[in-house]
Amino acid sequence: MVLSTHPVRMLDIILAKRAGKKHSPEEIKFLVDGIMDSSIPDYQLSSWLMAVCWRGMELEETAWLTDAMCHSGQVLDLSALGSVIGDKHSTGGVGDKTTLVFVPLLAAAGIPMAKLSGRGLGHTGGTIDKLEAIPGFKVDISTEQFIEQVGKIGMAIAGQTAELAPADGRIYAMRDVTGTVESIPLIAASVMSKKLAAGANLIILDVKCGRGAFMETEEKAVELAKTMAAVGRILKRPVLAVVTDMEQPLGMAVGHTTEVIEAIETLKGKGPEDLRELCLELGSLALVEAGKAKDTAEAREKLQKLISSGEALKTFATLIKAQGGDAKVLDDYSLLPTAKMTKEFLVPGSGKKWVSALDGRKVAEACKLMGAGRAKKGDPINMAVGVVLKAKVGDTVNGGDALATIYCDSEEQYKLVSAKLAEAYQFSDSEVPKPKLIKASIS
Amino acid sequence: MVLSTHPVRMLDIILAKRAGKKHSPEEIKFLVDGIMDSSIPDYQLSSWLMAVCWRGMELEETAWLTDAMCHSGQVLDLSALGSVIGDKHSTGGVGDKTTLVFVPLLAAAGIPMAKLSGRGLGHTGGTIDKLEAIPGFKVDISTEQFIEQVGKIGMAIAGQTAELAPADGRIYAMRDVTGTVESIPLIAASVMSKKLAAGANLIILDVKCGRGAFMETEEKAVELAKTMAAVGRILKRPVLAVVTDMEQPLGMAVGHTTEVIEAIETLKGKGPEDLRELCLELGSLALVEAGKAKDTAEAREKLQKLISSGEALKTFATLIKAQGGDAKVLDDYSLLPTAKMTKEFLVPGSGKKWVSALDGRKVAEACKLMGAGRAKKGDPINMAVGVVLKAKVGDTVNGGDALATIYCDSEEQYKLVSAKLAEAYQFSDSEVPKPKLIKASIS
Repeated sequence: MVLSTHPVRMLDIILAKRAGKKHSPEEIKFLVDGIMDSSIPDYQLSSWLMAVCWRGMELEETAWLTDAMCHSGQVLDLSALGSVIGDKHSTGGVGDKTTLVFVPLLAAAGIPMAKLSGRGLGHTGGTIDKLEAIPGFKVDISTEQFIEQVGKIGMAIAGQTAELAPADGRIYAMRDVTGTVESIPLIAASVMSKKLAAGANLIILDVKCGRGAFMETEEKAVELAKTMAAVGRILKRPVLAVVTDMEQPLGMAVGHTTEVIEAIETLKGKGPEDLRELCLELGSLALVEAGKAKDTAEAREKLQKLISSGEALKTFATLIKAQGGDAKVLDDYSLLPTAKMTKEFLVPGSGKKWVSALDGRKVAEACKLMGAGRAKKGDPINMAVGVVLKAKVGDTVNGGDALATIYCDSEEQYKLVSAKLAEAYQFSDSEVPKPKLIKASIS
Repeated sequence: MVLSTHPVRMLDIILAKRAGKKHSPEEIKFLVDGIMDSSIPDYQLSSWLMAVCWRGMELEETAWLTDAMCHSGQVLDLSALGSVIGDKHSTGGVGDKTTLVFVPLLAAAGIPMAKLSGRGLGHTGGTIDKLEAIPGFKVDISTEQFIEQVGKIGMAIAGQTAELAPADGRIYAMRDVTGTVESIPLIAASVMSKKLAAGANLIILDVKCGRGAFMETEEKAVELAKTMAAVGRILKRPVLAVVTDMEQPLGMAVGHTTEVIEAIETLKGKGPEDLRELCLELGSLALVEAGKAKDTAEAREKLQKLISSGEALKTFATLIKAQGGDAKVLDDYSLLPTAKMTKEFLVPGSGKKWVSALDGRKVAEACKLMGAGRAKKGDPINMAVGVVLKAKVGDTVNGGDALATIYCDSEEQYKLVSAKLAEAYQFSDSEVPKPKLIKASIS
């Protein structure tokens, strides 16, 4: 690429975007460099961000921005580990324990999985918080150990030790306070810059949509998924994406111990149907992309066999042991942190009815009331508490039946959580269709 | 108005404007208060400004913003001076000496004129710089003296001593560096807040359009004029506006002494046609609005009589004397600062041709090369130098004839200015129509 010798000024970049023009790679580099060395004042960054919300960015521009943000810090080099290294990312949702099933499942299928993850800062913890429910499991391993483990056993899940794509952190902090969070190209660049810096070259994305998700409408979620897939294509890093429903929690369990158990059950061929389906869908797309199956039907069969044969579960045991955890939890859930009390939350009223809505946010808030979430970085988490739902949207229930099991530490907690669950559930006297989990697959 | 008790947050204001919503008076007040006490960080102000460029503002919102900005500092109270006090403002253009003709003309017609003006910071000085070419003329008078003089002789033209509408200064400084200057509601609020703070209640605006003007297209200039008129209506302060062509300089003279002479000539019934026409148009609209004439035809006749009778010129003499100046300049231009040399710039080539374009910016740059403009606040100005054009767009000229008189201090200056004038003028072999000066009148 031939760079112009014309000096770039931030004001010109703002005016160009304001006028709806496409930035050059040189302008994008100037912008990201200026964010990193603080030569661009905040007030110019923020007016540019709002101009991007207004005018958007073309796919190529978004890819250039992603690339520049990715290279604003350390970029992991996993090339020594093989030609295909997988990574999986979800835009976040209540009850999302997919990674715990997906990483061992794909590793068992021969795709090395290198998964770096942040800690949760919401109503419930993130994936690596959940793994810490397993006694001894170490998520804070060095980058060198992380790479070595992927090379040795074909998988690792760890918390980020180095800051990846630091420009993203700075841009995100500014977006958060200037009303510029909601922007497909900015969200795509934020997610993808961190994924690319983490070094994998087969990136599998789960974009949630609906109430309680980052993208409220399916249309926007599909646009985001397509944008991230296009950015990957332009930067020569394959990206697969599915858009999934987040109108209600994924699976039945919300909490740490409860979700680990649900993930293990799923690896045993049991577990809730939606979680299993999501893992099979994401996994089959990945297998086809990696050349491990000729089509998704063959890929699904392969993955199902890995589950029914116990191979996937055995691979999870290998992962747990490699990271210092006690793999006996797979057969004995009592080794996991256990809440002091187990109490049922009952279906209100009487007679047969259908669950018409189930607000995941409220379920998460219920868990947070018991200490399952963090208010700020570094806060301790109560791993033992949680909720296991017994019915979701479209299921029939009867007044007085158990609707959810609450794992709590006190009668007081039980009352608070029951009140939240009462808000989370809505019922109908007439039949309600079961919502479709997977809205779209993009590859 | 009932204000909600909901606490206003700047982020909510940004998100509301981003979504295209109309602000409440409470939100606007919060915003302007926050700008004045610096509780709103620059990066939030700038993203809001860009959101306004994107979504615009309704007329009522713009009026609320104008009012809040107006009341961010001192507001002059001229109510003791009578029920109608006029003020005139131009959005700025090359060769614009209208105020020097207009203020005495309207004062002679019985409309008190209270004109506060800023100093020029462009290629040539502003109105009050031009007045300083008159020996002894004092523009730096106190607010009290200013009001007293309007009461006594019906007019005053002075530089601002107090900062009017200080919120405008802060907002403008931010707009200047964040690509948010171009926005009709923001420009309207900026101009009108200062005009309203200056206390007049009959505001006469000259919105320039075309090359070298703030608004490049007639459409945008008309929109700005209508917006300012509407803001005045909402805030119960009548605003009259004309949209005028600024594709070429106004009148023939550019410089300080040269423009003062042209203004005096116009008050004597001579002077260039476009300048005279603009003063009559603006003046007749004002006379009708103030109830001094039943229609613009009667108003024009009245104004023309004030000129032909010498009354308008006599009124200018009164103004000059009241502000300490030497009124003998009206009859003896040699009392004004005089340049060392007078040289003609000739029509290039040979044969008859038409002037097809005359770039006012280039003419102003030519004057600046001789020291007629300021690079920064407080720089001295050379009052004596300037240019008097002999032909404008649509005029016929002959190769070798004098095209402009250059008032300069050296042979070196003459060469520099000639080169600029050669760039400013364009010619055509076929007839070129004379452009219309007044594009629209809004009242």
